[in-house]
Amino acid sequence: MTVLVPYQALLSMVARIFADRGVPEERATIAATALCHGDLTGVSSHGLINLTRLYLPLLDRGRADPRANMVVQTDLGACVLADARRTLGLWSASQAMELACARASRHGIGLVSCRGATHIGCAGHHAARAVTHGMIGLLASNCGGQRIAPPPGGAAAMLGTNPLALACPAGDAHPFVLDMSTTVVPTGRVRAAARERRPIPPGWLAAEDGSPVTDAAAFDRGEARLLWLGGDPETGAYKGFGLGLLVEVLGALVPGAALGALSADGENDDDIGVMALAIAPELLRAGFAADAAALFAAVRDWPAQDPAAPVVYPGWYEGERAARRRARGVPVPEAVYDELSSALERKAG
Amino acid sequence: MTVLVPYQALLSMVARIFADRGVPEERATIAATALCHGDLTGVSSHGLINLTRLYLPLLDRGRADPRANMVVQTDLGACVLADARRTLGLWSASQAMELACARASRHGIGLVSCRGATHIGCAGHHAARAVTHGMIGLLASNCGGQRIAPPPGGAAAMLGTNPLALACPAGDAHPFVLDMSTTVVPTGRVRAAARERRPIPPGWLAAEDGSPVTDAAAFDRGEARLLWLGGDPETGAYKGFGLGLLVEVLGALVPGAALGALSADGENDDDIGVMALAIAPELLRAGFAADAAALFAAVRDWPAQDPAAPVVYPGWYEGERAARRRARGVPVPEAVYDELSSALERKAG
Repeated sequence: MTVLVPYQALLSMVARIFADRGVPEERATIAATALCHGDLTGVSSHGLINLTRLYLPLLDRGRADPRANMVVQTDLGACVLADARRTLGLWSASQAMELACARASRHGIGLVSCRGATHIGCAGHHAARAVTHGMIGLLASNCGGQRIAPPPGGAAAMLGTNPLALACPAGDAHPFVLDMSTTVVPTGRVRAAARERRPIPPGWLAAEDGSPVTDAAAFDRGEARLLWLGGDPETGAYKGFGLGLLVEVLGALVPGAALGALSADGENDDDIGVMALAIAPELLRAGFAADAAALFAAVRDWPAQDPAAPVVYPGWYEGERAARRRARGVPVPEAVYDELSSALERKAG
Repeated sequence: MTVLVPYQALLSMVARIFADRGVPEERATIAATALCHGDLTGVSSHGLINLTRLYLPLLDRGRADPRANMVVQTDLGACVLADARRTLGLWSASQAMELACARASRHGIGLVSCRGATHIGCAGHHAARAVTHGMIGLLASNCGGQRIAPPPGGAAAMLGTNPLALACPAGDAHPFVLDMSTTVVPTGRVRAAARERRPIPPGWLAAEDGSPVTDAAAFDRGEARLLWLGGDPETGAYKGFGLGLLVEVLGALVPGAALGALSADGENDDDIGVMALAIAPELLRAGFAADAAALFAAVRDWPAQDPAAPVVYPGWYEGERAARRRARGVPVPEAVYDELSSALERKAG
């Protein structure tokens, strides 16, 4: 039921699918890398499964523009406002982080505040581009005008799942990559459980009266609401909601992208806002890289409650999986592989 | 059992106590404002209760230096590295944010990365200084070398409660101020419950085997561990721990402050690291202030499940309380007021 596809072959296949729909070659490869990152690291809810469900429809319906260029609208040196002009978010979020790193290499810090983006895929992938420059990357992205989760005490959805990601070098070890929705889980994990008819743990979804819902399919039936990180007010739901608002402010209010709470229909994740922030700590002080390596080595060496379950930091298991799968191939569900093959044959719609 | 003290009188009283211990007058007032912020807004676990328990002992034992100056060590324009040189963190965190705002007013963004700080009090108070300049303020502060909470699966404490705060203008309304520890609650709330012999809800503390602990006093007896935001791994504890590491990275690894995981004894919150980041969105685009006002008005007007419990954003209730207490006086527990009076009489130790 699973096909083991060599990583480079998978990348080429997806890049070809994007290129066949008018995405320039180099850009198609960058977008394919962002998409395959999900399956490479094991976050398959944000990977290839979304190609035919999300990204190709965006292109086919003209909601994403394969060829437009990002346009810088205000340039203050360390701080830039850009319009992604509906280009593939899988590409533009990486471009925004690269530009932020270029500015950080001169000013110590670089901020690219971007509106007009489309769905970016795994936020952590884009944040981690900073690590290849020896920098720290912070990425926040709202869900455009889409409303998914209600505020604590609210009767209707207000914000998206609003991902936040931070990546930091860890010496020769896998980088620290925190990549989190500000809700307890992203919708992709709920839908993956629904597809597999798996029950979900209490604490992800709640009925309107607040009682826990463990049937994942209840979410898309509109019978359950996604909870914010923290779960309920006594255990910090206001923090999760506050982090969702933090992402809305940094990611979308600053550049003037669509805001969930102010959108007309709350349906579409168009005009997404992205904040890409890079910090170049070695410009501030010598010794950062060594200290970062020591910090994350200490985390991995931390005494564990169960010696068989070592302490790790976010990004560690994803890094391990990616290394293994680059060498031995990426497992792709047969149904998803068939979708890729069909999309490759079908070419642009 | 509670004394209602006029706000200005309270401020003068605390400023006098600091000034009597060698803190320069202007600095003493800034530190007093930061300390009184807790009781003014209702976050009394981070207010006056800490004066005789935390800040005066810091000064009396020489762990904090009343008179030293913060020193800029690297200046890249938009990005600055500073050493707070053990000055009162209640003061230096505000100075760091003011400097970040000054740099943001020229570059769109300003980052002041600061080491050598002492305990800063309410992180949100310092972040909110940016709002008085029409800017967004983000503040992250670790707990120096102190270790309080173990990582998920870990057998020993590794990091502090590592607060994170974001403040954003909301037009004429109270600003959005998210001020959160990255653990479910900060230690101050656990200790306040212990002092009042109140049980705490399940989800704040856990025994070594993971079972919930509702006796707040168990924390200081070493019989319970503080949980990360998210509670357990299934409901996002790795996100809370990841956010704690995010603060450790941004707040302390960047400037080279003490790191919990690498400190020799894990006991003291000395050499705290603070990141103060300011963004000046009006330099990027016109219309930010109006959009911010509209966003936060929409949150307050959001349909509520219970009309008697309106939807609000973090900072709203704190802003309401502060306005009321500025006008009518700040309620101070009699025992705490007696401590202040004694400290005022005692002068420097």
